[in-house]
Amino acid sequence: MIVADLDDARAEVREAFDRYDAALVSNDIGVLDELFADDPRTIRFGAGEELFGYDEIREFRSRRSGQGLARTLERVEITPLSPEVVLANAVFRRDERVVRQSQVWMRLEPGWRVVSAHVSTR
Amino acid sequence: MIVADLDDARAEVREAFDRYDAALVSNDIGVLDELFADDPRTIRFGAGEELFGYDEIREFRSRRSGQGLARTLERVEITPLSPEVVLANAVFRRDERVVRQSQVWMRLEPGWRVVSAHVSTR
Repeated sequence: MIVADLDDARAEVREAFDRYDAALVSNDIGVLDELFADDPRTIRFGAGEELFGYDEIREFRSRRSGQGLARTLERVEITPLSPEVVLANAVFRRDERVVRQSQVWMRLEPGWRVVSAHVSTR
Repeated sequence: MIVADLDDARAEVREAFDRYDAALVSNDIGVLDELFADDPRTIRFGAGEELFGYDEIREFRSRRSGQGLARTLERVEITPLSPEVVLANAVFRRDERVVRQSQVWMRLEPGWRVVSAHVSTR
């Protein structure tokens, strides 16, 4: 494995992570849908739901409120496991609450996509 | 990528997942420590804490109570991303609460190890 490949993967996923975060705060559902892998194996555990497969995730987003989404990034660790798989683990603060977000990004045909995500409040 | 490799990876990680789960319920700290990657990049987000690096995770385990750990597995999805990286996403029930556990397993020199984990109650 070439280190430069991992550095490239890290930089590309950091860019995708920031794009996802901006879309989340502004409730840009088109971008949120785009950045999750369109695959029945994609999984998202949210604060109050467990979603299995891209269709469940997209359906959930379509019903999602655009209120109270603002949050401040406190720490993010981008960890490449290979040139094709990169983890993004982040801690945010929303009002007085600590929000943790774990994402697994995979380099797929159309680009980097989230194949698994878990969001929770401490 | 050879499909048989993915099937092997899936079976091996399912075995490791079950071993981890048995150790968690019986509070077998030796096995829990063994199955997390001994690496400063390993991350674990738990119900009430964010741990960065293997040392923080091990220190947390050493102070952990062995009470109230019993839980029932309701669903687990083992998703190989490559022969070296496999996701294990599980939903448990503990008393009346739904517990979600996301793990990223990686095939390392000593065997399959968790490099990232996120546990939360709904």
